Amino acid sequence: MDLNPDPKTSLRRLELPAKRAERFLSIRQVTSALAAPLSTEDCAIQSMPDASPVKWHLAHTTWFFETFVLVPHQPGYRPLEPSYRVLFNSYYYAVGDRHPRPERGMLSRPGLEQVRAYRDHVDQAMLEFLSGERALPAVDALIELGLHHEQQHQELILTDIKHLLSRNPLKPAYQEQWPLTAIHACARRWISCAAGLREIGYSGPDFCFDNETPRHRVWLDAFRIASHPVTHGDFMEFIDDGGYRRPELWLSAGWEAAMARGWQAPAYWESRDGRWYSFTLHGEAPVDPHTPICHVSFYEADAFARWANARLPTESEWEVAARSSPLAGNFLESSALHPLALREASANGTPAQAFGDVWEWTRSDYGPYPGFQCTSGAVGEYNGKFMSGQYVLRGGSCATPCSHIRASYRNFFPPDARWQFSGLRLARDGE
Amino acid sequence: MDLNPDPKTSLRRLELPAKRAERFLSIRQVTSALAAPLSTEDCAIQSMPDASPVKWHLAHTTWFFETFVLVPHQPGYRPLEPSYRVLFNSYYYAVGDRHPRPERGMLSRPGLEQVRAYRDHVDQAMLEFLSGERALPAVDALIELGLHHEQQHQELILTDIKHLLSRNPLKPAYQEQWPLTAIHACARRWISCAAGLREIGYSGPDFCFDNETPRHRVWLDAFRIASHPVTHGDFMEFIDDGGYRRPELWLSAGWEAAMARGWQAPAYWESRDGRWYSFTLHGEAPVDPHTPICHVSFYEADAFARWANARLPTESEWEVAARSSPLAGNFLESSALHPLALREASANGTPAQAFGDVWEWTRSDYGPYPGFQCTSGAVGEYNGKFMSGQYVLRGGSCATPCSHIRASYRNFFPPDARWQFSGLRLARDGE
Amino acid sequence: MDLNPDPKTSLRRLELPAKRAERFLSIRQVTSALAAPLSTEDCAIQSMPDASPVKWHLAHTTWFFETFVLVPHQPGYRPLEPSYRVLFNSYYYAVGDRHPRPERGMLSRPGLEQVRAYRDHVDQAMLEFLSGERALPAVDALIELGLHHEQQHQELILTDIKHLLSRNPLKPAYQEQWPLTAIHACARRWISCAAGLREIGYSGPDFCFDNETPRHRVWLDAFRIASHPVTHGDFMEFIDDGGYRRPELWLSAGWEAAMARGWQAPAYWESRDGRWYSFTLHGEAPVDPHTPICHVSFYEADAFARWANARLPTESEWEVAARSSPLAGNFLESSALHPLALREASANGTPAQAFGDVWEWTRSDYGPYPGFQCTSGAVGEYNGKFMSGQYVLRGGSCATPCSHIRASYRNFFPPDARWQFSGLRLARDGE
Amino acid sequence: MDLNPDPKTSLRRLELPAKRAERFLSIRQVTSALAAPLSTEDCAIQSMPDASPVKWHLAHTTWFFETFVLVPHQPGYRPLEPSYRVLFNSYYYAVGDRHPRPERGMLSRPGLEQVRAYRDHVDQAMLEFLSGERALPAVDALIELGLHHEQQHQELILTDIKHLLSRNPLKPAYQEQWPLTAIHACARRWISCAAGLREIGYSGPDFCFDNETPRHRVWLDAFRIASHPVTHGDFMEFIDDGGYRRPELWLSAGWEAAMARGWQAPAYWESRDGRWYSFTLHGEAPVDPHTPICHVSFYEADAFARWANARLPTESEWEVAARSSPLAGNFLESSALHPLALREASANGTPAQAFGDVWEWTRSDYGPYPGFQCTSGAVGEYNGKFMSGQYVLRGGSCATPCSHIRASYRNFFPPDARWQFSGLRLARDGE
Repeated sequence: MDLNPDPKTSLRRLELPAKRAERFLSIRQVTSALAAPLSTEDCAIQSMPDASPVKWHLAHTTWFFETFVLVPHQPGYRPLEPSYRVLFNSYYYAVGDRHPRPERGMLSRPGLEQVRAYRDHVDQAMLEFLSGERALPAVDALIELGLHHEQQHQELILTDIKHLLSRNPLKPAYQEQWPLTAIHACARRWISCAAGLREIGYSGPDFCFDNETPRHRVWLDAFRIASHPVTHGDFMEFIDDGGYRRPELWLSAGWEAAMARGWQAPAYWESRDGRWYSFTLHGEAPVDPHTPICHVSFYEADAFARWANARLPTESEWEVAARSSPLAGNFLESSALHPLALREASANGTPAQAFGDVWEWTRSDYGPYPGFQCTSGAVGEYNGKFMSGQYVLRGGSCATPCSHIRASYRNFFPPDARWQFSGLRLARDGE
Repeated sequence: MDLNPDPKTSLRRLELPAKRAERFLSIRQVTSALAAPLSTEDCAIQSMPDASPVKWHLAHTTWFFETFVLVPHQPGYRPLEPSYRVLFNSYYYAVGDRHPRPERGMLSRPGLEQVRAYRDHVDQAMLEFLSGERALPAVDALIELGLHHEQQHQELILTDIKHLLSRNPLKPAYQEQWPLTAIHACARRWISCAAGLREIGYSGPDFCFDNETPRHRVWLDAFRIASHPVTHGDFMEFIDDGGYRRPELWLSAGWEAAMARGWQAPAYWESRDGRWYSFTLHGEAPVDPHTPICHVSFYEADAFARWANARLPTESEWEVAARSSPLAGNFLESSALHPLALREASANGTPAQAFGDVWEWTRSDYGPYPGFQCTSGAVGEYNGKFMSGQYVLRGGSCATPCSHIRASYRNFFPPDARWQFSGLRLARDGE
Repeated sequence: MDLNPDPKTSLRRLELPAKRAERFLSIRQVTSALAAPLSTEDCAIQSMPDASPVKWHLAHTTWFFETFVLVPHQPGYRPLEPSYRVLFNSYYYAVGDRHPRPERGMLSRPGLEQVRAYRDHVDQAMLEFLSGERALPAVDALIELGLHHEQQHQELILTDIKHLLSRNPLKPAYQEQWPLTAIHACARRWISCAAGLREIGYSGPDFCFDNETPRHRVWLDAFRIASHPVTHGDFMEFIDDGGYRRPELWLSAGWEAAMARGWQAPAYWESRDGRWYSFTLHGEAPVDPHTPICHVSFYEADAFARWANARLPTESEWEVAARSSPLAGNFLESSALHPLALREASANGTPAQAFGDVWEWTRSDYGPYPGFQCTSGAVGEYNGKFMSGQYVLRGGSCATPCSHIRASYRNFFPPDARWQFSGLRLARDGE
Repeated sequence: MDLNPDPKTSLRRLELPAKRAERFLSIRQVTSALAAPLSTEDCAIQSMPDASPVKWHLAHTTWFFETFVLVPHQPGYRPLEPSYRVLFNSYYYAVGDRHPRPERGMLSRPGLEQVRAYRDHVDQAMLEFLSGERALPAVDALIELGLHHEQQHQELILTDIKHLLSRNPLKPAYQEQWPLTAIHACARRWISCAAGLREIGYSGPDFCFDNETPRHRVWLDAFRIASHPVTHGDFMEFIDDGGYRRPELWLSAGWEAAMARGWQAPAYWESRDGRWYSFTLHGEAPVDPHTPICHVSFYEADAFARWANARLPTESEWEVAARSSPLAGNFLESSALHPLALREASANGTPAQAFGDVWEWTRSDYGPYPGFQCTSGAVGEYNGKFMSGQYVLRGGSCATPCSHIRASYRNFFPPDARWQFSGLRLARDGE
């Protein structure tokens, strides 16, 4: 699998048609490359209602371009198979009927080969469309949205297949080779941020999701944020100190979730002979204490922070603190597919590893920014309607494409979700 | 039932022992008065896991004083019955074992008479304690907390018994007489609030819950808030316009809840011969269009606001707008036990009926204020551990004791809860 | 509580009106006597969907006479309260709507006093009816059915209140005094029964349920049946031998039920300090090894039998073996309300304690006898429609009224039911 | 697909090694042929907990020979992959751990190709074993059991894949060509059977399952049985007459199942424009009134019989009536894979279509015959432990291999199962 990002494919606002096509294909090919190591059966099975079959991801991302770009904007375009309009609609009511999410794994047909043919069909039509003259700015925006949408599903392909493979007693690896990293001593420090009226949210000229807008003012009291994320080693201390047995450390709903599901450790962990192992995309491996913790829920992150006499940062605090860090890190393109050991920040006084490695839970619920307006039309269902009952994560993970992330990027999951590469960074009040 | 508030019982910071005892008894007696119209069986049954038997409320509020005041601070105090320590613990892990919440309705023993004897026993001991000299400020604070806790359960007694009675096909009334109100024309207006850096939260000398602190700065963009709450009549228009059949109006989680539970109207509504009826504490009655809507979930409130081309206010906006309104309204003491028709505000340019009638959903999730610290000790479990997955409601309802409410008061419930007197008031961006 | 059966009230086919009234009242009064030790709350609460509130039993047995006797056959009879027709209908579709079974515990109204008044109202009308001349044989049969129905609910009152009280951590006793029994050595023996064509089922002149008819021929191979029921002591051996941990002893569905519900012992058992205690109608007590085992499901009875290298008898075998035993034993009237220690049979070569003490599970599913016809009309729903998914129990228990039982009597419960006084007796193939 | 049975492969008790090997391979090849039309994904997915992936059936039938024949009896045999011992164990506790049934669909690995290699590996070893001298009678019996086991899974492959394909909105066909049958007028008659002492069960020299033994005496009262099974046309009359809306026709548990699952028609039926369609292995087709009804549960069969003023036969009645019919019919080998229209019986006075077309529900619960003993060892778990909560079906279906069925054959399923080719034949009391 070669996921190295092509330096030529970074986003430009005023692209020539040839550049646009190249960038389109480049992102589409990453998706196919991610599915390449998988068997036909790996791609077909849905391991839980939250996850989707890889085959479905391959088809749904294609459906997006067909439904929102080709059908309305490319005269003469003929869908390869009309029934796909319903089969591969995720949640857009405005588009019409949808195949129910927990039933995605029931679709043995169309098979993987047919889905690949579907991708080819739509890619071909998109290349023709992109080479034409008629693209309007609104359509450009839809294509851009479709490419970012595709990147989100690239990450989900990895987290969903990880979940599926983990349920197999044979514990198969997605990718055999294991990333080697030098481990340096790396002291954690608090970084201070002064109180003041700040702005957060996106307002630049490039792509962003509607939920990152409008850029708006927030008052922040003085706070400190940790220089590094919490590690697996830190979390083992929490476990050893009875973290999963002490209700006073937990939110009430978190404690109930932990009891009901029998949580004793992060997802994918297993204890054998007094040692912790975890299932990774490289198969099962001993838990490495030097790497950022991942596969913890918001509830576990919150309980850990309380145990550590700290708290989670708000998303405003996170954005203000992290936006001065360079947008570099352990992303999908490194092919590590697992968080790597702590490293020093490249710039002085900025948080290290804020981008890549693991998504970082914030204490902010996922709601609308002041003045938020949904995009109009069916794509307005993209973000706005999910603004309840979820918490914001920031910074991207080892499964996120590098060109996909921004300091203002808001990811969101329910507080009990654990199958993403989700970790945390501590914060404290005052200077 | 005589719930008229005694003018002498309003809170004073420096009370004489006699005053303190009088106030203590006065609030305790309201609880007993609320249970007086009920039969022994009415008081014993739990109608859903969210609700508790009235008998349990009578005992648990008593347990609070016994556990947090008498046992630790009154030398020589002997609990009436040691087993009550577990039976009537609601959710305090620090106090030890708890009888599970959904099992509260399984306790036929102790019977209502024994629970009344328990109340008398503890009241007697509290009066002795209050007449003594030894009270410390910390204990005073616990007693004050206990009294506000008792008032919260007064409201729950009413909402829980309403739910139980509603499940009986005989549709019995809690209270026969029906409040009469004159209905005046009452135009709804938008009240403008300018942008600026504001402060919210409580910082005065009187009692408040820990979740209202610390008072802190927030930046508010300009907004408008409605002069009156949304009415039953407004909501019927929403229903007639297909409000419960149009997913585009709803949050995704709200739509799923509405589908899964078959919501077609607010809780307690029933349609017969093309007309809406609702179950009230006075029995079943035609829905009155002139009164504030109640028994809607956060999801329904949010969908209504979207339909009305508006939104819910944030809790900061609500507090800033409403705190200039006088703290008066249709509270528990009016004995109406139902929202009353729209009335003009007593002060010009302030929101009308912000206090009393119905709790108003805000769009703010219930989280910690910047710098929030839980109260230490077991009573620290009072509020902080519930700070996830719930939304803030403001202003009190027709079932709230008048002396219990403040502009900074934060009530909170999950977004699908409907059995409280919960309604809404609209807001919009900009001036 | 005085439940001694009046010797004058045994069933006579040709009763004088005065006798009929006396017998009617006598049975009705037993029901009231059973409820007498209970508090109002004890009578109101439903502890699980399978059980009903005592208040409901009091009302439903009354409803039976009102609905099937008074309304159709007593001119001028006025129901006390028309809504009771729906509220207290158990499962008769032909009678119209029914209040759902799991909701019976939601009815705080009518209260216990009103239900007692309902009983008095119907008893009064029935006495008038019984003193009249106009009774037809068909109506006599309905009254007889109603009285046997009432006796079935007498047993259920005891088993249902036992379940409710057991869920209370205070472990209250229904009846304080504990039955004393002398314990004699009592050797268990096998009783042989030769092969042959036999007849089972009822065909005499007295009352029986429709499910006991028609009397019909069955071929029985030679078998042996135990002289005594299995005891608590026997069952402790089974437990000590890993009975609840060895799937090979269990039916597949039984093992799944045991795993899913965490069965480690019969219902109501609790282990403390290496000793077994069980909850009884006299409160909690150490398990007495000399008494017949009770509160085991069909699955546990079947597993025990397999462990003992035996099997459950079929219902034909049981009836053929037990019908020569005298119809005497530890019934409701003894007020023991718990199985008593093993005793010798009164007649030589007959099974001991076949009647009373505990219901005995058979391996026969509850199905229609060859040629079975339901009673016509609404009372035809009494038995026939339950003929799937249940197993037959024979012989009555310590909670069964003595005049209620017969050798041909077929009780039936689902294979996982444990809250009845259900035990077992072993059988083996061959002579 | 060529499923024609090889005339040389019928069972002989004293087979030469070459014959035995030929017969072994012949049956194994039918299994592979049944999977041949399916895609890799079709073979991987589990559509409900009751059904298994085709891939699992292919592996589990192979596991049976490996576990019970090769490992214990073939010195030097090396399992292809030790982990399969757990992965493909269905329910044999004596063999050790099992992969949980509802998780069978989670196994993307081993893939279909690996499972085919597993089949080849075991077939090769079995052929060597069969060509050897050392086979003992006990091992012969295990091989015979393994072949009948394989045939049972052949039927399940068809019913399970039918269920999976039916859940796909594209409604794909398993096999395109549709069986044509001439439809002749065919009057249904009652066939009378006199009362008497009969014998049922198997006692011959050939293979049978343990649950068909011992042959034993039963008394049968006189009865009549229908000359033909109930047809789709008959069932449409039942539906038109409100069969699914009249609780008085149903067993209580059946009515609850019908309500809870919203049954309005047999499984796989769909109504469009006032006409019934059903999903078949040939895709969707209009319901053909001339063919035996299938995909009804025991509850529906029982309700239909009551509506028709008849009843289901007992399994004894069925066996006595049908055993004089020739063992011929519409079996798997006809490749119709669907019941065919009514035909006259080949022998006078015998039931027509008793064998093949559809399994026929009886009113007999699936229990042990008098004197029944499980086979000893792990294969004793084959039948005995399922003897509760299920009903007996007789006669085989269009998905049953012809050489698999006998008059004494007892199939069994829970009363709510509908995904088998299950229908019914009526019976009545008396001559």
